[in-house]
Amino acid sequence: MTRMTVDSERLVRRLKELGSLGVDQDGRLTRLAATDADKLGRDLFVRWAKEAGLKVFIDRIGNIFAIYETRENAGTAPIMMGSHIDTVINAGKFDGCYGVLAGLGVIETLMAEGIYLARPLVVAAFTNEEGVRFTPDMMGSLVYVGGMDVEEALQAVSIDGKLLGHELERIGYAGKLDPGFLTPEAYVELHIEQGPILESLGIQIGVVENLQGISWQRIAIDGVANHAGTTPMGLRRDAGHAAAKIMEFVHELATEYNTEMVGTVGSIHFEPNAINVIPSRATLTVDLRSPKEERLLTAETALADEIISISNALGVSVRSETLARTQPVQFCNDIVDRIERVVELGGFKSMRITSGAGHDAQMMARLCPTAMIFVPSAQGISHNPDEYTPDFDLINGANVLLGVATDLARTH
Amino acid sequence: MTRMTVDSERLVRRLKELGSLGVDQDGRLTRLAATDADKLGRDLFVRWAKEAGLKVFIDRIGNIFAIYETRENAGTAPIMMGSHIDTVINAGKFDGCYGVLAGLGVIETLMAEGIYLARPLVVAAFTNEEGVRFTPDMMGSLVYVGGMDVEEALQAVSIDGKLLGHELERIGYAGKLDPGFLTPEAYVELHIEQGPILESLGIQIGVVENLQGISWQRIAIDGVANHAGTTPMGLRRDAGHAAAKIMEFVHELATEYNTEMVGTVGSIHFEPNAINVIPSRATLTVDLRSPKEERLLTAETALADEIISISNALGVSVRSETLARTQPVQFCNDIVDRIERVVELGGFKSMRITSGAGHDAQMMARLCPTAMIFVPSAQGISHNPDEYTPDFDLINGANVLLGVATDLARTH
Repeated sequence: MTRMTVDSERLVRRLKELGSLGVDQDGRLTRLAATDADKLGRDLFVRWAKEAGLKVFIDRIGNIFAIYETRENAGTAPIMMGSHIDTVINAGKFDGCYGVLAGLGVIETLMAEGIYLARPLVVAAFTNEEGVRFTPDMMGSLVYVGGMDVEEALQAVSIDGKLLGHELERIGYAGKLDPGFLTPEAYVELHIEQGPILESLGIQIGVVENLQGISWQRIAIDGVANHAGTTPMGLRRDAGHAAAKIMEFVHELATEYNTEMVGTVGSIHFEPNAINVIPSRATLTVDLRSPKEERLLTAETALADEIISISNALGVSVRSETLARTQPVQFCNDIVDRIERVVELGGFKSMRITSGAGHDAQMMARLCPTAMIFVPSAQGISHNPDEYTPDFDLINGANVLLGVATDLARTH
Repeated sequence: MTRMTVDSERLVRRLKELGSLGVDQDGRLTRLAATDADKLGRDLFVRWAKEAGLKVFIDRIGNIFAIYETRENAGTAPIMMGSHIDTVINAGKFDGCYGVLAGLGVIETLMAEGIYLARPLVVAAFTNEEGVRFTPDMMGSLVYVGGMDVEEALQAVSIDGKLLGHELERIGYAGKLDPGFLTPEAYVELHIEQGPILESLGIQIGVVENLQGISWQRIAIDGVANHAGTTPMGLRRDAGHAAAKIMEFVHELATEYNTEMVGTVGSIHFEPNAINVIPSRATLTVDLRSPKEERLLTAETALADEIISISNALGVSVRSETLARTQPVQFCNDIVDRIERVVELGGFKSMRITSGAGHDAQMMARLCPTAMIFVPSAQGISHNPDEYTPDFDLINGANVLLGVATDLARTH
């Protein structure tokens, strides 16, 4: 048999075209959810979907669904692909958009080949995955699976003081359908890895079997500001020193758990932040992630204990506040196995991998069997104009998605 | 004999009055060197000195000298007291001003008592001790002792873009005398401790026998920004983690040297400083101080070695830059002994102490026998509106200065 393939030239061209929309005055790609820039991206995707002959539906939270169904399979639970097309500030062209456009390409290929499918195919573009303009992130898929009330979500206020509901109406994407109107038979999301593992190991396809739980905390340490030259070490209550100890602990904790945890202190602030003054206050954030909930719980407890011991030892007071907390998600074994079989047939090098970032798939997993496919990210860079995946890897990933979607839509 | 005392009511009143001049629009006491606010303070001090019958001289760098000499002692090397009256931003009322006004009070007392003195007495107010508006700090005394060329100093550019020479002319304090025109027989500076030691030990007078050397560095660490969720611990080049290790090392180093060193990381900055991004860059400052030059050198070398070992271990690159470096200063044993005898006679509790901060006395020590007298600072707070020394301690310190100055001026 001649192997079907997604139109690679078209996929690459579309990624480039979509990535050229929503460039702000500083030259940065920035399509925050429900802005004019987001509307430009949405309109383009909808135009492509309609030009391909798909029916396009919008639900009340602004999620877009492009559906390919035939007379024979209409009414049966579809196979859904998708991701998001909103971006962060100063984004790359691949995050989210790749999964959406590859999904569209898969459907176009199957339509062109006239392949019989027992189930409809849908490609979804979920609203506000990035969570930059409205909180929480992955909002469209969260609402879709019933994890957040749609009315509450539409009342979300943006960083620029606007209501999401009004903004969706304004840009013409406040649909009528209730989120969850379609219950897919399966959901598969193709995405760039946004991490360095695949590239560093020379592997083309990551078969994503689970997604890390995330624990975000903000830690505020109060000590006493004093003159750096005149305060003996033993009389100090140095908030900065306590911060350093917490940073070291987070690093050691994550390193000890090896592949089962990552831990990061990404932001820090001292007050008064002067060379010759002992910091009176240090504020830092801790990002802990693990594919295993019990690991995450143990790490959170260990950190809390360490904070008490540091605050006692250094005479500072420490408060920690949870900024975000999600549990790990286990993807569907059956779909993971199917992805691996498709990868084997295609002759790609693959590995099972854990998603370190959050994705719409983690929400969809509450609704239906779900898994993800990763392609390499150059140097692991993402959320940055330097985000890059070579065309060759983009095509490979799209063709794996094609194989998996076909497999799922044919056999279920 | 009836013991002479400085007029305590007048000293406290003058400190309050001088401290009320130069309050900025935000209500902060801010008399930066050679500003209009500094002129207000200078004019008031000069007025008080002239009202007391003293001759006032200004040198080319703007240092003010108020001189009391008699027909008998004119022409002999004077005993100089003094400090500075410029302030930091949002300053307290005591730093510097206390030493100048107490010196003036000492002279007034001796004049009123008609005590015979073998030497003239001088009280000096040195220009730009704080170094906030012009670099370097302690500039007036540094130029006075020949440590910096006066022409070079007058070319110093302020943080607001002005030349010091022009600013001194503008406020009427560009004098004609060459710095160093008077070589004192001895210099004694009375100052608040600006540290917590005296208060915490319940001691009234600190007999300052030396002054710490200061080593200031800025350390810039370059790592690689990557996604906090998707980058395994082993593949990171975390500039923040390297910063934490340096902070820990600085603390341990200073603690190990115990009373012979203090070490502080007072300021830090991460880039991009986001909760879910591994820091690509961390910038921090290190403040090391020791009364022993060899300790300071050893510590600087140890830190440099540690930085190399951290950068190798973590795969980051680290650059360090010296921001300031002064050697420790040993004050004159004879004057230190005299201060102790005066303190004993007065029945005060005293201790020998090391100055952790820089003072004009460290410059004057290059020119003549020098020492300092400290009084307690409440909670060690300085460079802050909460800077406070109780009236009782202010008077004690002034009376010790009176005794020491009399002793020096009588017997030399």
